Amino acid sequence: MFTTPEIDAIFAPAAHIRHMLAFEAALARAEAAAGVIPVAAAELIAAACREDFDSSAIYAEAAMAGTPAIPLVRLLRTRVAGDAADYVHWGATSQDAIDSAAMLQMRAGLNLLLADLLVIGARCSELAQEHRRTLQSGRTLLQHALPITFGLKAARWLALVTRQIQALRQVSDQSLALQFGGAAGTLAALGDAGPRVAALLAAELGLPLPDLPWHAERDRVAAIVAAVGIAAGSAAKIAHDIALLAQTEVGEVAEASAPGKGGSSALPHKRNPVDAMQALAAGRLATGVVPVVLSALAHEHERAIGGWQAEWAAIPDLFRYAAGAIAYTRQAMQGLQADPQRMRANLDLSGGLMMAEALTLALAEQIGLSEARRIVETACDQARTAGGSLQQAAHDDPRIRAAMSPEVIDRALDPAAYLGSADRLIDRALAAYRVAVGRGA
Amino acid sequence: MFTTPEIDAIFAPAAHIRHMLAFEAALARAEAAAGVIPVAAAELIAAACREDFDSSAIYAEAAMAGTPAIPLVRLLRTRVAGDAADYVHWGATSQDAIDSAAMLQMRAGLNLLLADLLVIGARCSELAQEHRRTLQSGRTLLQHALPITFGLKAARWLALVTRQIQALRQVSDQSLALQFGGAAGTLAALGDAGPRVAALLAAELGLPLPDLPWHAERDRVAAIVAAVGIAAGSAAKIAHDIALLAQTEVGEVAEASAPGKGGSSALPHKRNPVDAMQALAAGRLATGVVPVVLSALAHEHERAIGGWQAEWAAIPDLFRYAAGAIAYTRQAMQGLQADPQRMRANLDLSGGLMMAEALTLALAEQIGLSEARRIVETACDQARTAGGSLQQAAHDDPRIRAAMSPEVIDRALDPAAYLGSADRLIDRALAAYRVAVGRGA
Amino acid sequence: MFTTPEIDAIFAPAAHIRHMLAFEAALARAEAAAGVIPVAAAELIAAACREDFDSSAIYAEAAMAGTPAIPLVRLLRTRVAGDAADYVHWGATSQDAIDSAAMLQMRAGLNLLLADLLVIGARCSELAQEHRRTLQSGRTLLQHALPITFGLKAARWLALVTRQIQALRQVSDQSLALQFGGAAGTLAALGDAGPRVAALLAAELGLPLPDLPWHAERDRVAAIVAAVGIAAGSAAKIAHDIALLAQTEVGEVAEASAPGKGGSSALPHKRNPVDAMQALAAGRLATGVVPVVLSALAHEHERAIGGWQAEWAAIPDLFRYAAGAIAYTRQAMQGLQADPQRMRANLDLSGGLMMAEALTLALAEQIGLSEARRIVETACDQARTAGGSLQQAAHDDPRIRAAMSPEVIDRALDPAAYLGSADRLIDRALAAYRVAVGRGA
Amino acid sequence: MFTTPEIDAIFAPAAHIRHMLAFEAALARAEAAAGVIPVAAAELIAAACREDFDSSAIYAEAAMAGTPAIPLVRLLRTRVAGDAADYVHWGATSQDAIDSAAMLQMRAGLNLLLADLLVIGARCSELAQEHRRTLQSGRTLLQHALPITFGLKAARWLALVTRQIQALRQVSDQSLALQFGGAAGTLAALGDAGPRVAALLAAELGLPLPDLPWHAERDRVAAIVAAVGIAAGSAAKIAHDIALLAQTEVGEVAEASAPGKGGSSALPHKRNPVDAMQALAAGRLATGVVPVVLSALAHEHERAIGGWQAEWAAIPDLFRYAAGAIAYTRQAMQGLQADPQRMRANLDLSGGLMMAEALTLALAEQIGLSEARRIVETACDQARTAGGSLQQAAHDDPRIRAAMSPEVIDRALDPAAYLGSADRLIDRALAAYRVAVGRGA
Repeated sequence: MFTTPEIDAIFAPAAHIRHMLAFEAALARAEAAAGVIPVAAAELIAAACREDFDSSAIYAEAAMAGTPAIPLVRLLRTRVAGDAADYVHWGATSQDAIDSAAMLQMRAGLNLLLADLLVIGARCSELAQEHRRTLQSGRTLLQHALPITFGLKAARWLALVTRQIQALRQVSDQSLALQFGGAAGTLAALGDAGPRVAALLAAELGLPLPDLPWHAERDRVAAIVAAVGIAAGSAAKIAHDIALLAQTEVGEVAEASAPGKGGSSALPHKRNPVDAMQALAAGRLATGVVPVVLSALAHEHERAIGGWQAEWAAIPDLFRYAAGAIAYTRQAMQGLQADPQRMRANLDLSGGLMMAEALTLALAEQIGLSEARRIVETACDQARTAGGSLQQAAHDDPRIRAAMSPEVIDRALDPAAYLGSADRLIDRALAAYRVAVGRGA
Repeated sequence: MFTTPEIDAIFAPAAHIRHMLAFEAALARAEAAAGVIPVAAAELIAAACREDFDSSAIYAEAAMAGTPAIPLVRLLRTRVAGDAADYVHWGATSQDAIDSAAMLQMRAGLNLLLADLLVIGARCSELAQEHRRTLQSGRTLLQHALPITFGLKAARWLALVTRQIQALRQVSDQSLALQFGGAAGTLAALGDAGPRVAALLAAELGLPLPDLPWHAERDRVAAIVAAVGIAAGSAAKIAHDIALLAQTEVGEVAEASAPGKGGSSALPHKRNPVDAMQALAAGRLATGVVPVVLSALAHEHERAIGGWQAEWAAIPDLFRYAAGAIAYTRQAMQGLQADPQRMRANLDLSGGLMMAEALTLALAEQIGLSEARRIVETACDQARTAGGSLQQAAHDDPRIRAAMSPEVIDRALDPAAYLGSADRLIDRALAAYRVAVGRGA
Repeated sequence: MFTTPEIDAIFAPAAHIRHMLAFEAALARAEAAAGVIPVAAAELIAAACREDFDSSAIYAEAAMAGTPAIPLVRLLRTRVAGDAADYVHWGATSQDAIDSAAMLQMRAGLNLLLADLLVIGARCSELAQEHRRTLQSGRTLLQHALPITFGLKAARWLALVTRQIQALRQVSDQSLALQFGGAAGTLAALGDAGPRVAALLAAELGLPLPDLPWHAERDRVAAIVAAVGIAAGSAAKIAHDIALLAQTEVGEVAEASAPGKGGSSALPHKRNPVDAMQALAAGRLATGVVPVVLSALAHEHERAIGGWQAEWAAIPDLFRYAAGAIAYTRQAMQGLQADPQRMRANLDLSGGLMMAEALTLALAEQIGLSEARRIVETACDQARTAGGSLQQAAHDDPRIRAAMSPEVIDRALDPAAYLGSADRLIDRALAAYRVAVGRGA
Repeated sequence: MFTTPEIDAIFAPAAHIRHMLAFEAALARAEAAAGVIPVAAAELIAAACREDFDSSAIYAEAAMAGTPAIPLVRLLRTRVAGDAADYVHWGATSQDAIDSAAMLQMRAGLNLLLADLLVIGARCSELAQEHRRTLQSGRTLLQHALPITFGLKAARWLALVTRQIQALRQVSDQSLALQFGGAAGTLAALGDAGPRVAALLAAELGLPLPDLPWHAERDRVAAIVAAVGIAAGSAAKIAHDIALLAQTEVGEVAEASAPGKGGSSALPHKRNPVDAMQALAAGRLATGVVPVVLSALAHEHERAIGGWQAEWAAIPDLFRYAAGAIAYTRQAMQGLQADPQRMRANLDLSGGLMMAEALTLALAEQIGLSEARRIVETACDQARTAGGSLQQAAHDDPRIRAAMSPEVIDRALDPAAYLGSADRLIDRALAAYRVAVGRGA
């Protein structure tokens, strides 16, 4: 449940086989171009790589062989006529095919995540603008703190999403890389043609060419995995806020309703935020995979026993769950319904005590800060004890009334007038997102 | 790759559906027996639960509904004729069906793990007996320490496996439990028949009856998950030792060879320990799932948003990988070939310096410990500097020769005579395993 | 911040040194009793073990030596007069002292956790009884589901805590164990006296005697670590519920207020649930340590390089944070103030729609379930659309009025009458706790 | 043990207090420069911030207050004379001080890690050059694969370390940021002066100015944490290789010996690689902290309850352990002794079978690849069965002898002639490191 069909298609076992075949075809072409193998052989190999292979048979054999590349190469050789079969997988090792295929999959996976993040960003932008002046309680430790606007909340989500877009693009540019080193990382079987073949192969696959093979130095993979985990956790942050805002007692947002969505036959009032729920579940699952890769960085010698192979399952698991977290957050955001009336009503729950700081500062202009603090504290105590509002208590306090007119008191207590730089912060988030999507500053 | 077909069958989505249907059938029967719903309705419901359901359709709808139980119950009602349909899922909530089904799956999964652990134990028992006197280096921090026997090593593996058998049985007895509480854990829709229905339902399913529903108190699940993770990590301990012993330079064990197993077309000398490799990879993946469940213990109120649902993927992931870790360790052990000659040759690598402690103790009987220490240290320095053996240095040292005859020196330096309680420890491990498998002390 | 002084005292480096000295003293006594070393030497050693040692000097040297036991034993020998110094640490290895000391620390740590869990349980018992009939919303996915009582919520917390008490006691009985095997686990230096010394040593230390040394089989440690992590996560569950119930918009509970507690100078209305906050932070930190130990189960050979040593920091970290999680939850619970009026007011927020199921069941007795469902659904739609209550809609509906008198309608909609087995579940939780604390069933 | 005094000094509680005081001083100066508070007040505040504060008293109070900033600000106000005290912490919230202080600590911590990584890199460079032609077995799955050179191994370590240097610098540039938003992130108390003060404050502290406050969007912290975790794991990779190469049976490297280092009184032959051991332990502990932060990304609303506060312990834990992992790897590398004779002897262990691929390729030039493969396979079988070398079998095989002269056979079997691009890869790693340290390409 906690994934999407699109990402499943990229990380299915069959897709891994296809990407390994793409590697083998590109390798043959690169080696032909470098004069290492006959051009005719390369053509035959590339043609065979376009055929269908039975991925479940390959994986069944893989458990015995220790890698899916060995049975795949064996099968591929049977599909290539004559001596050309000898040139299949020439000079490469299983890990070259497996890692490069994984890189191709991750490239596609990152693009998918980016597409959804851009949609979330666009929706955050809308909400930030539409609700620029929609008052809402700012909440810290789940308690009301000071007024904010729902637009500012959306802008902070937007800034978060924008940074994820930048982070995934950056890791895509910096950490994706061809793997090509041969059996022990020396490209020995290619004589001195290794670097030339590597460069051509990287170009064929559209993967960056690294300085060295990195069979047992997995920081590239770890960096991608961490970035994807952080993006998934960031989506979960938004989903978490939605879930909290949608609580029955809060009621400030709701997910789109649809037949069969989030309901319960026995509980007709139920409208569960199921998109947020799925994003939260998927986010937990995604960030849970990150330490599997990070804790396995200490690979053994030139190829690990266990730590590398665990990536074969961990990377697909991670991308599937991360795509789920991001896609369900997108879905929750796309249908999100805000209730400004509830936001305002909740803001008033604490009888205006949230505005004590604002009143103090306004009063301080007349009588100094220390004195103002003491007086407002008394008024707050009064409001709390009497169960009334701070507004009432302020109007009732002779010292406040002596310093401020009723209108000035009311203005000081108006949440809409105590939003500081909210507006400019919203503008900045909007601008940064526009830059990220290439629509200028 | 890092799993087994047997465990996949238990934890496939279709199997989860079947287990939920088993819950619904048992619920109907229990409620009929308690007089809550008509017996005829229960029979119709139970019959419908034996039909085939399209699990992928159910899961497709589940993403929208928020749980697979809602579409399943809806579909099930369409399969039940007349008013009996009204009694489907009577008084239950989705979580009752989902959690109870997961418990049934985990019960089956635990039994599968236990079966493989017993086989590993049997093989360890064989090796412990067969190699009771096969000398081997005991290694600490990957350095030679003192002599042990390969039988003792196998006995320690055996003790570890025996404890896992006990731990999985115990968690099976203590933590598996029926889930049944209705929409908010009060069994409100059943009036005062709740406890009676619960008891009958538990009996129908063969699941222990808990004192209270535990929708949001997930310690039971966490305890099972932790025990399974520890069992997987324990299997990985054995696999790790095998991988280390199979190193080219160590060569003390090898996995069974088979066509297509662990080889490399380009590297004819290669005989990779691929069973150990898969166990190590699967073990990493399995223990990696444990924190997903443990870090989500703080469920919200009466049902969590995200933390519970993540279990739906985490539990199958965990069992699949843990079964892989244990099954591949079993496979590695079943085919394990030991090389006593290599063990003995490796033991001699450090020129007998490993026996310095034994020589010291023997010498101390004649001349006191402090003096013996000083003398043997000199002999060791001598052996190291000259590149010779401690035996030679001991025979060359006049102070040692004065205190001990050549035969006594040689006996003191014989690893086979310096094994302490190895034999009795082996006996204890064998006895504890026999108790665990019910073949007496 | 996220710990307690009591647990810090148990797991401080100086305490580890003291516990290792307790091991060395007990070892000397055990060996004297077994006739392995002179009684007089044992007395001198035991006396020296009662002296003060400079733990920071020992740890400074430990980094070089690789273990704190080596410099400790060296220092201890300098404190023991004459030949008796030779018998210090006789036949033992560093790991024997370090692991056994850790076991003694964990025993003390478990007792500390248990003491706090018992207090939490006592407070849950009070709340369960006192609020047995205090109506509250049952909440699933953070949405109102069905009525419960606050007493039932406390009873579920109680059941959770009772199980943790049982689990920690069980792991204390089953997994604590003496470590004693000598340099490679054979007790070679003790000849055939090993098992006798081990038994005496275990008795001296009050630690269970294991069948075999377990230097590299860390399932015992992992089981303790997992149990402690689950107990910490269970405390966090309670703390999480408190934090959610204390939200400004919910306001059903508050932590005890005290000068300087949870306030903010600028925000006079603030009363942050800081005990719950600290429990939640500490709970995250505690469960975060569990995978460090579990992922390191695959120790190398007879003693690990890295995986074992990491425990030296991980175990203290875990216990410190777990003690913090449990102690702060205890503190939050001890001062917890419940607000039954707010609970009732929140229950009414959804206009009685929560009672639709109850009304349906009551109506069904008159007109059958299918018809009743349809009618109540219409009434619910009516209530939602008109913004009124289900009660009003029910009284307005001619079909309902035809089947039920106004009094019967009102009774069907009374949350207090739709609590199912809440009472009996509370009784069960109370009884299980009483058994756990030894005050009978 | 698994840390360093230098990093401890940065992340001690007292240091956190000092960094918060630096924040408060800078805030006062920035607000004075912006005309928000009197310059004289700012001077008094800045002076008071240079005084000593009792960090343990502050932390004792912090547990009650919920943050260390509240008691610190309270104490600081008592140290500032007259009305200036009112301007302490003006417009800021606790989290501004705590997060900004943490950022200052992390900046210092990153610099410390970078310094050690540069030393490791320098040592890798030396080894890569010195052992450019030192033959060694390339090992995959802990089995010999093909020849490499020890220089290439060092070059791959170097490339890994160079990337970590770049990654830590990049995260330092991109993710360190001032935190400044006031109680709910609007900077309300500063009216419209917020952005101006923020810019001045960032300049005062030398921290990058972010677009928006990020109180509850923790991707910056997560990115730093992940990068540090990956750097620690990368150090552990090197330490792991050292531990494996130092095995008694492998003996290709040893750590520097020193009195009291890695020895055992009872086992005179012991020379444990304790630096590598500590790096491995610390690396495990460091990567174990990463998920604590990543799994807590879903902060609540404008400030989290638990997830944020857990960072206060997690960040120091992470940096301490990561610094330990990197410093001990540096130490292991600085004293590393390589044994080219052992490397060569190990290479010959498999009787030259490792060179089968090379022989095949050489033979293929004469008789085609398919035929060459068949013949060499037979020769390998022959060598394995007879227990001889491939060289012998090749010279004995009439078909090989017919195609190649004895000299050509020997050249084909010479590992030094089958190193592919090892040399160029070493050059690339050296060049990239030189660029990283600013000594040109």
